[in-house]
Formats: sequence, structure tokens, C-alpha cells
Amino acid sequence: MAIITLLSDFGLKDPYVAEMKATILSICRGAQIVDISHGIEKFNTRMGAFILASAAPYFPQGTIHLAVVDPGVGTKRRPIIVEARRGFYVGPDNGLLILSARKEGISHVYIISNPEYMHDQVSRTFHGRDIFAPAAAHLATGHSPSDFGAEIHDYILPNFAEPQLRDSRLLGEILFVDNFGNIVTNISVKELKTLGANEGHLLHVKFEAKVLDLKLHSAYGQVPAGRALAIIGSSDFLEVAVNQANASQMLGVKVGDSVSISLRT
Amino acid sequence: MAIITLLSDFGLKDPYVAEMKATILSICRGAQIVDISHGIEKFNTRMGAFILASAAPYFPQGTIHLAVVDPGVGTKRRPIIVEARRGFYVGPDNGLLILSARKEGISHVYIISNPEYMHDQVSRTFHGRDIFAPAAAHLATGHSPSDFGAEIHDYILPNFAEPQLRDSRLLGEILFVDNFGNIVTNISVKELKTLGANEGHLLHVKFEAKVLDLKLHSAYGQVPAGRALAIIGSSDFLEVAVNQANASQMLGVKVGDSVSISLRT
Amino acid sequence: MAIITLLSDFGLKDPYVAEMKATILSICRGAQIVDISHGIEKFNTRMGAFILASAAPYFPQGTIHLAVVDPGVGTKRRPIIVEARRGFYVGPDNGLLILSARKEGISHVYIISNPEYMHDQVSRTFHGRDIFAPAAAHLATGHSPSDFGAEIHDYILPNFAEPQLRDSRLLGEILFVDNFGNIVTNISVKELKTLGANEGHLLHVKFEAKVLDLKLHSAYGQVPAGRALAIIGSSDFLEVAVNQANASQMLGVKVGDSVSISLRT
Repeated sequence: MAIITLLSDFGLKDPYVAEMKATILSICRGAQIVDISHGIEKFNTRMGAFILASAAPYFPQGTIHLAVVDPGVGTKRRPIIVEARRGFYVGPDNGLLILSARKEGISHVYIISNPEYMHDQVSRTFHGRDIFAPAAAHLATGHSPSDFGAEIHDYILPNFAEPQLRDSRLLGEILFVDNFGNIVTNISVKELKTLGANEGHLLHVKFEAKVLDLKLHSAYGQVPAGRALAIIGSSDFLEVAVNQANASQMLGVKVGDSVSISLRT
Repeated sequence: MAIITLLSDFGLKDPYVAEMKATILSICRGAQIVDISHGIEKFNTRMGAFILASAAPYFPQGTIHLAVVDPGVGTKRRPIIVEARRGFYVGPDNGLLILSARKEGISHVYIISNPEYMHDQVSRTFHGRDIFAPAAAHLATGHSPSDFGAEIHDYILPNFAEPQLRDSRLLGEILFVDNFGNIVTNISVKELKTLGANEGHLLHVKFEAKVLDLKLHSAYGQVPAGRALAIIGSSDFLEVAVNQANASQMLGVKVGDSVSISLRT
Repeated sequence: MAIITLLSDFGLKDPYVAEMKATILSICRGAQIVDISHGIEKFNTRMGAFILASAAPYFPQGTIHLAVVDPGVGTKRRPIIVEARRGFYVGPDNGLLILSARKEGISHVYIISNPEYMHDQVSRTFHGRDIFAPAAAHLATGHSPSDFGAEIHDYILPNFAEPQLRDSRLLGEILFVDNFGNIVTNISVKELKTLGANEGHLLHVKFEAKVLDLKLHSAYGQVPAGRALAIIGSSDFLEVAVNQANASQMLGVKVGDSVSISLRT
């Protein structure tokens, strides 16, 4: 039976996540529902896209990812289903789904317009429950994504910054600060290689208000507790961390800040 | 196999929710357990009742709802099972279950007194694990609610305020502030109709320290970001919200505050 | 099909817990995954050990407990599987698993060294996903714990303080403060019996900055709201609580503080 993952900015205090799960189970009783995260910052589609793209590759082939970070709910933004190489993505057409789907390869994108696959009454405030959850559940029961509406090609691409290479410096930004305070940049391991940076090298790291030289390590415990280091995190992006402490707080760095990286020679 | 939902004020840090789930799975291995919320404010039976009543209608027929917000645990308050039209409710006799059960229609209410369906040793501090979870699990295995104890008729009714209509004003209160900061009142769409208020109308909204005229919209995105609006929320209660911002913080309004609504003509 | 529980200090905002679940389901599709807690304080193996030991006894025979509070990830600390009387424990060799496993009886402890049962690429920052989750899932599919590596006998014992009896006083410490603010000590009901303390007796309780005489009750509701009491909690440890209020805040007591208990005569 299909796995359906959930990601949202709804938090876990309110009834909203449970209403989506209840809707799914009412349509597809045997669905295995797995929460990715409901702690996305409100309306932060970039953070949602990053966390979805981090977790999705570990799920089995055929998984259906239902994601709702949706500042435009009730306006003209379209509800979509993305058919990708390894599974399906259901949610708003605002870039949230595309980062992850593009990593595996996008086959088709369909608009959800067929009212047969929606709640009887669609509220204008909660498409997660009234449109996306029913669509994910109907997909799980075996419906083809083309049953839900017309194929489209003009879906919204995520406009997240890509890092720039300029004069042997990588100019990027802070994508995410995790629960440990580790600072995740948008600079991937591939881009670091273009600088010629490898494990053991010293990186010159410029945050907005702080400049550090940090060795590129492969484990947090390779520096003493309380010491900062550079590291390729578990999602293959460059992180700045402090062993057993909160780097974001210690360095005064937050999501969206710019960062520049060069090789210290 | 039966779905068992869980709602409590236990939070997710402590071992308590897991102990309830473990107890359920020890009795009914195939139960599908779905969390509604464990973020109810401590001992706030009203908030628990509201969230339970919001989520329950979306679950399939036959769902068993186990809810524990229980300031009177270990005292004489009774443990009960409510048999309602669409499913069962298990928890303390303090009004928590009745708001939701009454919406679907209450068939019978039974006291839980049969020790065969309890833990071998019942602690006096944790009936969620020792009485309610075993009862829900035994219901899920097919036991009849009348096996657990005698039928009662004097169960506790919730004493939550109902809004009052006085001189063309609805006097109500704030039932809930959700994770987005949306302010949910206890004034339902039906009561608004008695005022003659419809979409597009201007409402005169009086909070304790703030008075606003707000148009009744049907989607958050119908006003610019940062602007306040009135809206019928996804649970059919009147909400005051601010598009893409936190209305509760911006307007200084909190749970339990009074509110008065009239039609601006 | 096997139950796999998860406990970590990862929180629920980040993608890490979902990546562990996805890894488990990719190997063992039918596993029933139950979260114990992901709210352990960062790197606090004592709190993790206590919560694991509180919840584990309620799970069915054969349950696999996967626990990750792992300040030494990527260093030489070993990944282990503990075979205990009632089930299996998978995680780092830092004492986290042993408190709970010892309660039920440890049969064997194995190191995890066989790369066949790991992710193709093992990161040095996330053994939860790359070593422990695959090990738990392969155990769930029926592999023997001895398939994963050699048996060891020199596993790390938890170095948590045991309470001391000195001159009719029990000297202990605060093990945990739960979400209600209840103060859980490391003094068990058995140790209290050695003092001759029984329900109804008056205990002389000395915290670092506060001294109280508290009656030993069996339910929070046996004192008026706002009043402090001593009580044997649901995990059989002595707690100091305040009925319907936060004892930790009211008494200024926190995890790790010392406490001394004697019988008031």
C-alpha cells in the first residue's frame, strides 16, 4: 500500500494536520502516512522545499509527497500534481514541490481541477484538507495523475538563489538552520569542488558580521566541544557547525544571510 | 482494523504519549493510531474539546477517539466511554468529549469500571495509560461499550459559553488562537446569518482593547499581506486573521477574551 | 510485523527523523514505527536513557528500540545492538540504551560492523540514518543480531548517579522535569521504602535553594490546586509536583540539581 508523506507549516498543536490525515484515511484506509515536518516556518516555501528535497530521496519508489506551505491559498495559484521519476508530489504551484521533483526528474505536471477528487465543499482557507489530501489519497488508490486535470508546462519554478562563483569566491546564502543550530548554506559539495576545496583544507568563510577560517572536517567530533568547523552535512551542502553547541547563536547567523567562501592558501 | 485517535495536553517530549501507544499496541496490535494533538494547553479542557470537535468529523465511521485533558485524575471524576453516531469517545467525564460527541449525536454513555479492561496496576496519576488506552484498545478489538460498566445519564456537560444575541450584537469570546495567530471566536456561521451578515459585508468587531471594521472575506489572500480581515474559518467559526501575519499578536487578543460583533451598515 | 520505536534529540522541525523512517520503510515496508520522543535535550544521554527506560516496558515483546542521542557521532564510539529479554536496542555505545536494557535483562551486546547492513554511503554526521535505521530495519526483517558484528562485553555503562543513603537521608538528584513541570527524582519507590516512607507520611525535602515538608500522596488532586505534594510518579520514581501548576518553575528546581529526602517524624 502506498506511503503518503506530509509536510506543512501547520505545526502540531492545531487540528489541521489531523484533518488532512483523517481525509486521507477516509479515502484510502490502508495508506501509510509519514510526517516529514510540520515545523516549516510560516509561509517559508524555501525552507519547505529544502526539507522536502532533503528527505524525499530516502523514501521508497512510488511514495506520494503531500506538501502545503501555501501563502496564496484561496487565490488563483493552482493546485498541482507532479509526476516525477521516483514518486508523486501534490501541493500548491508555488515552487515548493519543484526543487525536490527536479532532483529526481520531472515527467509530467497536472493541474488538479476535477471536483470528483475533492471534498464536497472546498473551503477557501484549507486546500490541504479539501483538495491536496483527497488528491494524494486518490492517487494512492491507483488513479492516474492525468485523471485530475490537464497537463501544464508553465508551473512556477522556485526562485531560490543559486550560489555564484566570482573571482575564486563562492557567493551563497543561508538556506536553513537546523535544530542543533548547524548553519546550512546553499553551497553544495559539487560547487566546493570547483574551488578545489577538499577535506582538511582551510576555508575562508565570510558571514555578514563575522569572518572565520575554518577547516573542512568530516565529523563534528573532529574538533573539541565548543569549536567551530566546516563540514559537508548529511544533505551534501556545506554547513558551518560548532561541536556540541549552537553555531547559529554563537556566530549570530540566520536564514537568508549571505555567505562567501574561498579557499585559504 | 480500527483507527484510534489520540488527543492530550501531554506534549511530545515526555514518555507519556508513547506509553499510551505501547499499551494500545500490546492489546490491539493492528490498531491504526493517529495523533490529533498533544499540544493542548495544560488542563484546558475547552481547547481540547474544540480541537477534538474540529478534527473528529473528518475521520471514518467507527473511529475511536481517546482524549485526555484531565485535571481531576485520581479524584472521583469518572472515566467514560461515549457511544456516538459516527464512533466512540474514551476519556474523563469532564466535558472534554461531549462537545464533539454531541455534534454527531450521543447514543449512550458508559462508565469504565470493569478492572478486566484496565492495566493490572492502575496508577492514580496516569489514567491515560492505565484506564483510557486499554479501554480504547479493547473497544478496537470488538468489545461492546456496555462490557466496560454501567450506562450513565448524568455525565458532565461542557460549560463553555455560547454566544449571546443582544440588540443586534453577538457577544462571544475567543475560543482558540491557532499556530498562524488566527483568532477563532465561538461565533458560528449560523449565528452570523442571524445578524444578516454575508460575504462582502462589513463587520464591526469589538475586542477588549481594540475596535475594528472588517470585511467578511472568503480567502486570506483577498486582502494584501499584513491586512486584517474577517473570515469563516475551516471549522465554520468566525475568525479574525491578518493575511500572512499573526493576528493575535498584532491585535493583542488572546484565548478567553470577549468579543462583540455587529453588522456595519 | 515488528514494531520499531524511535527516540532522538533531533526535534521534529528538521528532515532527520523522516530520513530515518524513510530508510526503515525502504528496507522493511511493513514495520510499525512509533515515536517515543524526539524532544530529548541535545546530547543529554541521561534524559534519553530515562525516557527510553520509562516507555519501553509498555511495548510488546520483540519490539526494536532505535535511540540516537549521540554527541560522539563520527568518532570512535561504537554502534551497537543490545539483545535484551523483551526486545532489541539499537544505537550508540554511550550508555543511552543500557539503563532500559538492564531493567529487562541483557542477553548479548553486538557491535554493528557489517557494511552489508548499512547505507551504501555512510556519512560521518548522521549514523541514525546510515547505520542505526538500517540495522533496526534488518532486525525487523528477521536477521539475527549476531549477523551484524562481533559480540562485545565492554560496552559503556551509564554513569548516572544512583541515590545514596546516609544517616537516614536519601541523597539523590533531579533526573527529569516533565512537560507539566513535575520534578522527577532518581529516588525509586524501593529506596523510599528503606526509609520507611509510606503514603500519608510527611517527607522532609531539601532542594538546593528550598526546603519543604511534603506529604506523600497518591494523586495530584489530593491537595488543592496550587499546592505542592510528594508523589510516586507513573514510572515509580519520587516526584515533587504542584497540583495543576508547574512545580519546577514555582520551586526553582531544574534537571541535575541535588535533592535530599528524609522522613519527618
